[in-house]
Amino acid sequence: MVKESNTLHLKRLGIDTHQEAIVYMRRDCHVCRAEGFSAHARVHVVIGATAIVATLNRITGDLLNPGEASLSETAWLRLGATEGDKITVSHARPVDSLSRVRAKVYGQRLSDLGLAEIMGDIVAGRYSDIHLSSFITACSARKLDGDEIVGLARAMIAVGERIDWGTTPIVDKHCVGGLPGNRTTPVIVAIAAACGLTMPKTSSRAITSPAGTADTMETLAPVDLDLASMRRVVEQEGGCIVWGGAVHLSPADDTLIRVERALDLDSEGQLVASVLSKKAAAGSTHLVLDLPIGPTAKVRSAADAASLGYHLLNAAQALGLEARIVRSDGRQPVGRGIGPALEARDVLAVLRGAPAAPTDLKSRAAALAGIILELGGVAAEGKGIDVAESALASGQAWTKFQAICEAQGGMRTPPCSTHRQPILAERTGRIAAIDNRRLAKAAKLAGAPDAKAAGLELHTPLGYEVEKDSPLFTLHAETRGELAYALEYIDNHPTIIDIE
Amino acid sequence: MVKESNTLHLKRLGIDTHQEAIVYMRRDCHVCRAEGFSAHARVHVVIGATAIVATLNRITGDLLNPGEASLSETAWLRLGATEGDKITVSHARPVDSLSRVRAKVYGQRLSDLGLAEIMGDIVAGRYSDIHLSSFITACSARKLDGDEIVGLARAMIAVGERIDWGTTPIVDKHCVGGLPGNRTTPVIVAIAAACGLTMPKTSSRAITSPAGTADTMETLAPVDLDLASMRRVVEQEGGCIVWGGAVHLSPADDTLIRVERALDLDSEGQLVASVLSKKAAAGSTHLVLDLPIGPTAKVRSAADAASLGYHLLNAAQALGLEARIVRSDGRQPVGRGIGPALEARDVLAVLRGAPAAPTDLKSRAAALAGIILELGGVAAEGKGIDVAESALASGQAWTKFQAICEAQGGMRTPPCSTHRQPILAERTGRIAAIDNRRLAKAAKLAGAPDAKAAGLELHTPLGYEVEKDSPLFTLHAETRGELAYALEYIDNHPTIIDIE
Repeated sequence: MVKESNTLHLKRLGIDTHQEAIVYMRRDCHVCRAEGFSAHARVHVVIGATAIVATLNRITGDLLNPGEASLSETAWLRLGATEGDKITVSHARPVDSLSRVRAKVYGQRLSDLGLAEIMGDIVAGRYSDIHLSSFITACSARKLDGDEIVGLARAMIAVGERIDWGTTPIVDKHCVGGLPGNRTTPVIVAIAAACGLTMPKTSSRAITSPAGTADTMETLAPVDLDLASMRRVVEQEGGCIVWGGAVHLSPADDTLIRVERALDLDSEGQLVASVLSKKAAAGSTHLVLDLPIGPTAKVRSAADAASLGYHLLNAAQALGLEARIVRSDGRQPVGRGIGPALEARDVLAVLRGAPAAPTDLKSRAAALAGIILELGGVAAEGKGIDVAESALASGQAWTKFQAICEAQGGMRTPPCSTHRQPILAERTGRIAAIDNRRLAKAAKLAGAPDAKAAGLELHTPLGYEVEKDSPLFTLHAETRGELAYALEYIDNHPTIIDIE
Repeated sequence: MVKESNTLHLKRLGIDTHQEAIVYMRRDCHVCRAEGFSAHARVHVVIGATAIVATLNRITGDLLNPGEASLSETAWLRLGATEGDKITVSHARPVDSLSRVRAKVYGQRLSDLGLAEIMGDIVAGRYSDIHLSSFITACSARKLDGDEIVGLARAMIAVGERIDWGTTPIVDKHCVGGLPGNRTTPVIVAIAAACGLTMPKTSSRAITSPAGTADTMETLAPVDLDLASMRRVVEQEGGCIVWGGAVHLSPADDTLIRVERALDLDSEGQLVASVLSKKAAAGSTHLVLDLPIGPTAKVRSAADAASLGYHLLNAAQALGLEARIVRSDGRQPVGRGIGPALEARDVLAVLRGAPAAPTDLKSRAAALAGIILELGGVAAEGKGIDVAESALASGQAWTKFQAICEAQGGMRTPPCSTHRQPILAERTGRIAAIDNRRLAKAAKLAGAPDAKAAGLELHTPLGYEVEKDSPLFTLHAETRGELAYALEYIDNHPTIIDIE
């Protein structure tokens, strides 16, 4: 279907559409006419040996001259285009794997082959946002069973790169989110690496939360390392904390996460496949999975934790990973900060052994690190937590963390917010409950995670006695607009923190 | 949140994104920085008293000067913008009704209030394609029950205009598609109006088929009539055949249909609500619903027809419509043409009483028109079909049809295709089965319905005896690319027409 006459020359318009591949062509262009393209058509764009599928936007004015076309910035980068390049445009082939998605919508199981085809088409950019959203929604409405979850994880691994570290064990951890401020990872990596284990940690950016580990870590050091740089850091320091998306370990997952974020949907099956595909692709062999349980955490009940734990262990085994599940208290945020830079300051306080460091963050990190040390064979059963605490107390973990930051490109100081506003207690009493979800939402409205300094600091944990008009938490924002936005939300939801 | 400082001046770039509202702003613009907008953010754009929600695309080059912004053509039209207008931009409010969609995904019922909120947000443009797709998918995966269907239909009616004709009965018909070429509507309207009934027919464009009635009718007369023009036609001629989208009778439906089309999903509940909301909004009081049943029709079995018929009658009653269901044979296409212009020629042949007119189309149209004449009180029970056949034979219906076309803006001659290719029988035998879906897909790949002359002509109905190498059907296309595309599909699916 590629015809020589269907060629146009590229002009860079510089339109940033985020991850959406758009091709801009004149409405009256000979290719549009010859191929019968309408606006919003899905078309196949080729430069040399590289091809993508893009959505057509038609130019009705003189932004482009006859014979010219343009691409959105993401399409420009994916095609490796340069100004004046010749592109060839034709109808996109029908995306056959969409019939697999429709079958799932109507209640049929997704086969391994079907999942492989879907993931292949997603990483090739053949799914529009409409298609991606339908797949995500179908997997939430029609829960994936154990085999589908394994099939999805395998398909996600297959379409990305997979690291072979040439050694074992490779230890790793993951926390099933929903608990604002629970930023144990940087502390755990520092402890594990300080104790001689290899822990090449790849983390996500936030899906529906005010900060992912990658967002927080980015305020302390660069995290957009490619695979070669990550390998260099790990070979030198035994550990790293980088963004998984930059090393393309599970490129399908990054695309799915963007849409899950827009929908605020997070299904059990997607979650298990997302976590384990990243771990397997990262070459991990031993894995600790932290499941915080609480009424407003992601895992709300012991029953939910049992189901999720079952699927995680089942899929881990199928993928050849040795995993252990840890259930923890998820009734309130961890540490004080919520938002990238604010959480980073809690991490630094724990690593430095600051007297005011949040004790909950410290004890959770030490407990998880202890299990990793045992799993990795550098601490005896039941002794891991003691070894972990020693590594913190001695400063070994802090030294190792600084070395890792330097190796990743240089340690940074987290930014400070420019706009702050304390939220005061409406009466005197004891803190009886904290709504993690609404607190997280307030932090997001204040700008987190895109605004790195934004979020909030929680002053009053569960059980704390407060006076009327004393501060419960302080909002941090980088713009007045976002601060006002978070305040409006808090005004409309006065029961985020329940005082009895 | 609307601040005077958040203003920019409009420059028209002329970018046609189909129905997607996009606002283009410089990446370094003061509003982006002050508000903390990232690419793909959902923002609130205001001109005077008119507001829309749009997706942000950021301009990295010099397409816009500092202080300038632009809008996609659809956003430009919806805001009634003119060059140089001052726009104010702020964060879009969170779309609260999305929590209703999420609850549906997880299995909760949609309440009347929830549906009203969702439809309100959809027509206000607050749903991105990702959100629309999730709603459509959720309603397919979690089938709507009877009350949800009525609630959806009511919500769709409430957000559009509703016509009061000041008279009764107002007759109407609808065919639940899936049967290529089944273009009875223009014939039925002509008969009903010729017999003195009022039949203001609003039709859809194709959802997943090669032609909707509006697409076909558009090759014979203008169909983009506004409400005032439609009223004038109906008052003058007693009937019309116009596109429902242009009269804004169910604007939410038009948006949903665009996404259903991209997904190739068509759920029972959406279908019932879509059909009946359009009928109620159009002021119809008496309604005939044609349900063709066949293995590759939209309704595949008697059981499916029973369920759909139940929901249609149940919802019709709740909405105050008198409805009758007709089940018909849906094992093969109707008439010869599939595609807008090709179907229009079949319609003309029936109305003109041409000797070669397709008898199946003629008899189906007469049967349905007969029931409408009885429902509308202008024919005795059991005599409707005779009256209908007389109106055709006498030429009254043909005269009326021409008058309606003239009143709609002038009768047109359907266009002829420029590229044709017969598909030949691979062996001698009898036509045992026809795959409506694949035949429709071939017609779509050939360019229908966007290319009006495209589609195919079927030469061999069920039971027909063919010789090897005689033509089964002829493909019609307006471009070589589309013809080649349909041929490739047919090569890959040799069993579209089964010869035994």
